[in-house]
Amino acid sequence: MEALFSDDAELRFMLAFESALAAAQASVGDIPASAAETIQGCCAETDWDITWLKTQTLLAGNPAIPFVDQLRQRVRQKDPEAAPFVHRGATSQDVIDTALVCQLSQALTTIRADLDELINLLTSLKQVHQHTPIMGRTLLQQALPITFSDKLTGWLSGLFRSAERLDRVSQECLVVQLGGPVGNGQSFGEHYTSICEQVAATLGLGFTTTSWHTQRDRLTDLASTLGILNGSLGKLANDIILLMQTEVGEVREGAAKGKGGSSSMPHKRNPVTSTFMVAIAHRTPGLVASLLSAMNQPHERAAGAWHSEWSVIRELVKLTAANLHHSNDLIRTLEVDTDRMQQNLTTQP
Amino acid sequence: MEALFSDDAELRFMLAFESALAAAQASVGDIPASAAETIQGCCAETDWDITWLKTQTLLAGNPAIPFVDQLRQRVRQKDPEAAPFVHRGATSQDVIDTALVCQLSQALTTIRADLDELINLLTSLKQVHQHTPIMGRTLLQQALPITFSDKLTGWLSGLFRSAERLDRVSQECLVVQLGGPVGNGQSFGEHYTSICEQVAATLGLGFTTTSWHTQRDRLTDLASTLGILNGSLGKLANDIILLMQTEVGEVREGAAKGKGGSSSMPHKRNPVTSTFMVAIAHRTPGLVASLLSAMNQPHERAAGAWHSEWSVIRELVKLTAANLHHSNDLIRTLEVDTDRMQQNLTTQP
Amino acid sequence: MEALFSDDAELRFMLAFESALAAAQASVGDIPASAAETIQGCCAETDWDITWLKTQTLLAGNPAIPFVDQLRQRVRQKDPEAAPFVHRGATSQDVIDTALVCQLSQALTTIRADLDELINLLTSLKQVHQHTPIMGRTLLQQALPITFSDKLTGWLSGLFRSAERLDRVSQECLVVQLGGPVGNGQSFGEHYTSICEQVAATLGLGFTTTSWHTQRDRLTDLASTLGILNGSLGKLANDIILLMQTEVGEVREGAAKGKGGSSSMPHKRNPVTSTFMVAIAHRTPGLVASLLSAMNQPHERAAGAWHSEWSVIRELVKLTAANLHHSNDLIRTLEVDTDRMQQNLTTQP
Amino acid sequence: MEALFSDDAELRFMLAFESALAAAQASVGDIPASAAETIQGCCAETDWDITWLKTQTLLAGNPAIPFVDQLRQRVRQKDPEAAPFVHRGATSQDVIDTALVCQLSQALTTIRADLDELINLLTSLKQVHQHTPIMGRTLLQQALPITFSDKLTGWLSGLFRSAERLDRVSQECLVVQLGGPVGNGQSFGEHYTSICEQVAATLGLGFTTTSWHTQRDRLTDLASTLGILNGSLGKLANDIILLMQTEVGEVREGAAKGKGGSSSMPHKRNPVTSTFMVAIAHRTPGLVASLLSAMNQPHERAAGAWHSEWSVIRELVKLTAANLHHSNDLIRTLEVDTDRMQQNLTTQP
Repeated sequence: MEALFSDDAELRFMLAFESALAAAQASVGDIPASAAETIQGCCAETDWDITWLKTQTLLAGNPAIPFVDQLRQRVRQKDPEAAPFVHRGATSQDVIDTALVCQLSQALTTIRADLDELINLLTSLKQVHQHTPIMGRTLLQQALPITFSDKLTGWLSGLFRSAERLDRVSQECLVVQLGGPVGNGQSFGEHYTSICEQVAATLGLGFTTTSWHTQRDRLTDLASTLGILNGSLGKLANDIILLMQTEVGEVREGAAKGKGGSSSMPHKRNPVTSTFMVAIAHRTPGLVASLLSAMNQPHERAAGAWHSEWSVIRELVKLTAANLHHSNDLIRTLEVDTDRMQQNLTTQP
Repeated sequence: MEALFSDDAELRFMLAFESALAAAQASVGDIPASAAETIQGCCAETDWDITWLKTQTLLAGNPAIPFVDQLRQRVRQKDPEAAPFVHRGATSQDVIDTALVCQLSQALTTIRADLDELINLLTSLKQVHQHTPIMGRTLLQQALPITFSDKLTGWLSGLFRSAERLDRVSQECLVVQLGGPVGNGQSFGEHYTSICEQVAATLGLGFTTTSWHTQRDRLTDLASTLGILNGSLGKLANDIILLMQTEVGEVREGAAKGKGGSSSMPHKRNPVTSTFMVAIAHRTPGLVASLLSAMNQPHERAAGAWHSEWSVIRELVKLTAANLHHSNDLIRTLEVDTDRMQQNLTTQP
Repeated sequence: MEALFSDDAELRFMLAFESALAAAQASVGDIPASAAETIQGCCAETDWDITWLKTQTLLAGNPAIPFVDQLRQRVRQKDPEAAPFVHRGATSQDVIDTALVCQLSQALTTIRADLDELINLLTSLKQVHQHTPIMGRTLLQQALPITFSDKLTGWLSGLFRSAERLDRVSQECLVVQLGGPVGNGQSFGEHYTSICEQVAATLGLGFTTTSWHTQRDRLTDLASTLGILNGSLGKLANDIILLMQTEVGEVREGAAKGKGGSSSMPHKRNPVTSTFMVAIAHRTPGLVASLLSAMNQPHERAAGAWHSEWSVIRELVKLTAANLHHSNDLIRTLEVDTDRMQQNLTTQP
Repeated sequence: MEALFSDDAELRFMLAFESALAAAQASVGDIPASAAETIQGCCAETDWDITWLKTQTLLAGNPAIPFVDQLRQRVRQKDPEAAPFVHRGATSQDVIDTALVCQLSQALTTIRADLDELINLLTSLKQVHQHTPIMGRTLLQQALPITFSDKLTGWLSGLFRSAERLDRVSQECLVVQLGGPVGNGQSFGEHYTSICEQVAATLGLGFTTTSWHTQRDRLTDLASTLGILNGSLGKLANDIILLMQTEVGEVREGAAKGKGGSSSMPHKRNPVTSTFMVAIAHRTPGLVASLLSAMNQPHERAAGAWHSEWSVIRELVKLTAANLHHSNDLIRTLEVDTDRMQQNLTTQP
């Protein structure tokens, strides 16, 4: 996930966009085939100077401007006549948003697979503990016995729904951005629809001819979906921390060398993985709120709100991936103390 | 909307739940038909003392406890043998959550209809201004001309998606809560599924046999959906405020007696309705974040996080309804100054 | 606190502002003494129609416009020549913000006193339990013994600092608003400073001649201070809920008729007061964030961000007052089970 | 600022803590002077393996555990008898929190200086434009003329207060953490106060003997203070963006090679620096809310809430520093178009 969200990966997706755009425009006859070939060749080059791009971003206001400049220069060196066809009809936000969506698409694939794994791990555990009794607790008071399977059913129910939500937002929200300078697609001429279709197909994204430069609902829908998943994972992790309390002791995180000690009390077995999960769940609501606030994007391009999304959505996705990674570790090695569960049912103080 | 979210309405929905539950349990033979009749009769009474209920809530921790006490007492006065069958198998959270979902269901129906009206108003406006040129603006700088219809297409696109999202969450999230004391439905006995089905059907809600006492993802999904809708409305309103600037002057809020003046400068035409809309959009992200944070609900019933939802989700729904109401007022009476739009295209300073 | 934040109370504070302003302007000779007397007389009348004012607010955009209209009309009926001197030089935001600050001032006085009471209650408890041993717990694992007094020292330390912060913000943030239509005081003429001083003195507020129509840092400072206090109270309440767990059982909320039961399990002693406290602490961060977001107020008066503060700051203050009220109930009647504390030190499973 | 928040810098501050602790304990006779010397020597070494530390953090739950292990090992190699005196009496949270406070302290020094510079730049600009007329605007409508100096007075007023707040929180919140395993200082023995004093003095921090392991109000106070500053900067930046609108044109960001163009319309002068500022101001409320939520830290050490602070507070500080850096760039090179200001006063459409 770190690699996917590196500056280098972002650049690769921006290059993929320009390459796909040139190919699409050549196929409909809007630019010469030879120009498209040259552009695609330059987009495949591997010696880009990321540090320079990052520096220029601060001056230009976004990474697309110095990026397109550099691409055009590279193309010009190979074929001066091809240079004007670079990024033709497109605007900064087209390449930046589409590159973001490509990143999100890859990240969601990983997240979806990790969620499936978590669901499988919990389902297996549920089968094992179909009849394991455990005290049900309301307002943190002992109430009536349930089964550990009941508890797992609860955790799973939210995760099943999150899996469906992820499938839905992957379908609805991972859509190409291609609107041109003022978002209405006019700059792409009469073949606009066809160009949109081809660029989307090449990049494996959904297709639209209504650009979303300042309509950010899809992005916040995706963000909320991740926020909700993290909420469910946080609840699961917090339940485990509560069950691990010395006085309850019904489950334990799996032991590992160097894991879960304390610098002053090395004998203790602490919740470690579930602690990281709770920490992530604490951070995600603020990130979702930040994106909801940023929906107020004026006119045809925002001056700030759009820019505020860049780090926030990526942080949210990385945290979600980490949370699932931790979850799978946690459940895979979870130690269930059925004796203690039984004991807590009968020996109330 | 105020009436729908009054204390009285909440009580009515709680009574509807108990009534539906007794009927369902009688129909499967779990309680005597006569008991169900008595219970349903008491649930139809209109002389409940809401003030007393509210006072007792602070002692009991939730409104359901004094409410069920009072219902049982009323039933006992009519038929002592029926009293034990009141609220049978159910827990406080069953009646409180289900009553909430009933409220949300009615509110969403209104919200959905108001959104349709807004979409219709904007669609009509779009047809009128298919060819009305207006300056496109990026980063609040004049860029290239677009049509006013392009701008309306943008606003509409997000609203169409919000309409679809509302339909989806109405389908997925408006689900009956019926889990009993520790959420696993055991207290309802062998006819649990049938009881759930009937209660849901009577109340017009979706059906599940997996209770969601501490799995709050459906509620946050609904909340996020409202948050996103408010985000789109806030963008629309802010665009109008920007277009209304004295120096731009391309649209105006409709005039009305007493509207939009200033106490010190009565001649001014101020944005009023759009200002209220922006104000609402400022408030909703924090409410959504609050509900996302509250997903961390321990074990089988939360001690605080659940309780924090009660006001927040209702406030969010009321604000959304108000925002749509303002939107429809705004668009219905919006004055479009096509001359000024034309003028701004040509006379740049 | 409900009374303090009623519509009627808001109106009273608005009347107090206009009354103070007229008096100050008369004292410096800017308006006739007789006009000031008439205005002050009308401001003391008690037959204002609040429902009408609320309706007009939606048209006018804020409550000050219809309010000033009505005041001017009342004055005109008594003395036509006095009417032009109503609200002279002032703008809507002057009266609305100053009335808000008056409300906040009264609310903070109550909050400060309740916090003192809480500190006293905790200090007394600390003296009793100077040497009561209790298990210290880190990451919810038993660690090493501490005293219950140590725990109380922790809770108290944050509250002492909150008390100091409240004193500071009361000093710094409760400041009169008096800027006129564009905030620079010009409309008040040469006696501006003196008028500000007198209005502030009459209303018991701090004094400034730099209006803060769109500089909202004082208000967010006050809001953050309340947010932090609620955070400390939430921690305290959550600690008590954890200590009340059946498996820990070291403290209990005091018993009261009708308190802390469950509709399905009437024998249980649930955390009730601490649950309400945790619920409040869940809601406050979103409210503070909402006010921080609303600091982006354009030019000399905001179109939405300002308006979004009205409910949010009031809700935050009311929740804080309720939280302290609950806190005092909780600590006053808290039952400390020193036997169980001792027992948990020695009998680890 | 990037260097200050690097992993390497964090390690340096952790080493500084252990070094200061050993020195203090030697000075009061709790550990041998020779052991302290060896520990200090090892703390001054420069060949630490940060990558290994980061990996181990995931297993151990926090960076302090592998760090202290490694330090103890290094000390043991030089003097086996000194090893037990490493980190003596301290707990992970002592070193992690104190290292954080050291970072914050250095960062606040820079932030404070940059804020002073901004205040100076704005004050100079104000002197130049003492009598420059500009239209005052309320609800984004032209209202009455003010001076550009009035506008600068507004911006400055909030910043002056932020400067005072920064001074206050630097005094109150930058406090050493030294509580030992369960926070009550017992593990440090009879010289606890003296050890606290010396460690604080060595590190240039404030001093307390009441540890704040789970009392996080100081940290949220500092965070809110930064949040408020960013709110004021966001307002300033947004005002400039509004004044830069093509139709208003009263100020312009300074020109620079490669700055402010658009990839599709290279002739445009866009707001760039102010856009970044607004973007930052959009992100900070969610971060402050996250820290407020994280105040709910159970018992003597939190399992998740504490850990959630680590990235969030650092991100907030880095964003604040960046915001001020941008502010100074913006104001230093701001072009003020007094002709256009004059023109907008007279030629209303």
